[in-house]
Amino acid sequence: MSQNHLRDEVQAAARAARVAAATLRRLTTDQKNEALLAVSARLRDETGRILKENAQDVSAAVENQTPPGIIDRLTLTEDRLAAICDALETVVELRDPVGEVVRGYRLPNGLRVEQVRVPMGVVGMIYEARPNVTVDAAGLALKSGNACLLRGSSSAAATNSVLISVMREALDAVGVPADAIIAVPGTSHESVQHLMAARGLVDVLIPRGGAGLINSVVTGSQVPVIETGIGNCHVYVDASADLDRAVDIVLNAKVQRPSVCNAAETLLVHRDIAAAFYERAAPALARAGVRLHADSDTTTLVQGSGIDCEPVTDEDWAAEYYSLDLAAGVVDDIAGAIAHISNWSTGHTEAIVADSASVITEFLAGVDSAAVAVNASTRFTDGGELGFGAEIGISTQKLHARGPMALPELTTTTFIITGNGHVRA
Amino acid sequence: MSQNHLRDEVQAAARAARVAAATLRRLTTDQKNEALLAVSARLRDETGRILKENAQDVSAAVENQTPPGIIDRLTLTEDRLAAICDALETVVELRDPVGEVVRGYRLPNGLRVEQVRVPMGVVGMIYEARPNVTVDAAGLALKSGNACLLRGSSSAAATNSVLISVMREALDAVGVPADAIIAVPGTSHESVQHLMAARGLVDVLIPRGGAGLINSVVTGSQVPVIETGIGNCHVYVDASADLDRAVDIVLNAKVQRPSVCNAAETLLVHRDIAAAFYERAAPALARAGVRLHADSDTTTLVQGSGIDCEPVTDEDWAAEYYSLDLAAGVVDDIAGAIAHISNWSTGHTEAIVADSASVITEFLAGVDSAAVAVNASTRFTDGGELGFGAEIGISTQKLHARGPMALPELTTTTFIITGNGHVRA
Repeated sequence: MSQNHLRDEVQAAARAARVAAATLRRLTTDQKNEALLAVSARLRDETGRILKENAQDVSAAVENQTPPGIIDRLTLTEDRLAAICDALETVVELRDPVGEVVRGYRLPNGLRVEQVRVPMGVVGMIYEARPNVTVDAAGLALKSGNACLLRGSSSAAATNSVLISVMREALDAVGVPADAIIAVPGTSHESVQHLMAARGLVDVLIPRGGAGLINSVVTGSQVPVIETGIGNCHVYVDASADLDRAVDIVLNAKVQRPSVCNAAETLLVHRDIAAAFYERAAPALARAGVRLHADSDTTTLVQGSGIDCEPVTDEDWAAEYYSLDLAAGVVDDIAGAIAHISNWSTGHTEAIVADSASVITEFLAGVDSAAVAVNASTRFTDGGELGFGAEIGISTQKLHARGPMALPELTTTTFIITGNGHVRA
Repeated sequence: MSQNHLRDEVQAAARAARVAAATLRRLTTDQKNEALLAVSARLRDETGRILKENAQDVSAAVENQTPPGIIDRLTLTEDRLAAICDALETVVELRDPVGEVVRGYRLPNGLRVEQVRVPMGVVGMIYEARPNVTVDAAGLALKSGNACLLRGSSSAAATNSVLISVMREALDAVGVPADAIIAVPGTSHESVQHLMAARGLVDVLIPRGGAGLINSVVTGSQVPVIETGIGNCHVYVDASADLDRAVDIVLNAKVQRPSVCNAAETLLVHRDIAAAFYERAAPALARAGVRLHADSDTTTLVQGSGIDCEPVTDEDWAAEYYSLDLAAGVVDDIAGAIAHISNWSTGHTEAIVADSASVITEFLAGVDSAAVAVNASTRFTDGGELGFGAEIGISTQKLHARGPMALPELTTTTFIITGNGHVRA
């Protein structure tokens, strides 16, 4: 397919989504919920058809010697598809953000002002080989009144294609424009390029995946982007910390699910309690299979504990391991912890374990991240854990949304200014 | 200056601003207000020095045969500088957005969650030859706890330089880092390019000025941008409108200050009342000096009224005249008005004059703009008019802020998650 032809196809898809969006923004919550339930029911009905297409993607991935972890994420089963449908049905229960009056007041001259939530319009999602994202993203976009353009991984092409077809059939059957859910044409990198250039047709792009994907979208897009999910999260254990609590939090933050963005990657410990802390923590971390990349003070303290330990490098301080590796250093005080975090953090989540109120206040004032956990694990930075009921991603940028994003973050606002013939003097 | 040298200088300025930002985010409201008053006092004290530098810029502009309107905006007088200082003092009275708890609740597991406003960090402003923006932007950034990088027009270089020097001297005298206010090095387009590439050093760029400037920043920047101020605003006069009210609103929207982004550029009138409306409106518009660019129906209706009228083109429907020109068309119904606006609007402000509640509801559902004025002039889309007390610009994008922006729009948020040893199950 020629470049220009592909560009035209991507733009045509975006235009079709815009037309659908004009209808979607007018749907009532009841109508949107009915459509969500219809989509879920049809996905359940078409389980056989969907698993058959997914099997094609999986066998192609096996042939291409794709790593087992990626094949696992790509694979659908009856249970996994049912869980995807369950999740879609929980979106029905979520409060519709559209129509919420964010601010409302009357001006001295009698004008009434309301700032009201309205859908974004057309939301573009760029993501890797996770079929659940195809359905999750479509469901959240639909509930918030947006049309969505879905650009999944080429390795999930058959799966995404059938999922999108089934969802479109379901929308059509309940009288909602099928173009509310559209696959971005093409599986080459060029189709992403054309999507990133579609300013004016697409209102926001949300990349979800590894650092390479996110960076290329963030730096290359003319469409506004919400940067998501890269997390070099720190845990700081202060001299005032309850040490048992500190051990629990560090273990949970590192090992409970190391492959996710809110897992801890660096541990900083106050010099005054470092020996006592590591006496308890090192054996526990060792038992959990954690490998330390440690500064010389830490290395001395963990000797004999049985934990794997090698010298830390700048690459380690910067690393998002997404594994059982953990960078570790001793700091002289809270200022040292803040300075280290300011230097290396990606601005996702930092945790402090401390009992001193003044130290906690200092940490909150000095750290500039999407979330700060005080005497709690970094793993709570999550839409589900924070009670949002859903999550479209975790923003690590400062514009529009920061931290876990759910339905309100897929909306914008309009000022409605109502008078009775008011003119400006 | 070599390209790389200039890039290094721009990045050094951004880094210096980041260092200052780490101090600024910790200042109390009292400390920020004291700094604002110190800046204002010093600007007043240095009036002579400032006007002398400004006179240099003005005489250079005269030599370069700069249009009188631009020279007027560039020119400072004792009164104008006093007004700029007055405006700075009103910022003292504005509520500090930093620390506001946007959401706060306790989760079932006992975790406390607070989403708290914090400064953006480093805000970059790119603007044209308006010296007042230099002081306004610095004041609003300071009050919201941000450092600012100011990139004004080369034609105002001497004025901006002295204004920034005086402001920095004032900050220094009250113990606030002078690098809270920094001029972007260089006056060439390259310095803007380097600023747009400074992702990670600059948190947001806000371009203010003409469409060319804004488009080049919006499409070229890797730093997140807030698009401001391009307005092709429409007024729709419905069949249900009170016609006297309609004439007042159209006149006000077009002629009260035609050079600004919230002035009306296109007038759409319902066929059923078009004759009666123009019978009243055409003479009034003619008296105000308005020139119509009209479709054939409108042209027929205004014949003999004395108004200048020429055939409308697609360029007219798209135009942001910022003059007394007005595109005008007759539509068959509310759907025709919405279709026209959807096709041509820049998404700034649309007004409807109508008495039918169902027509107003239809207009609000169908139009997707930053603001909709119902029986009121488009000219109310303004931070001052809406009671914000200040305005950093009017966003016409959907991400982060839409419509007039003031202090809260210069902040982001952090989630503070507080537990007592909470770990994730």
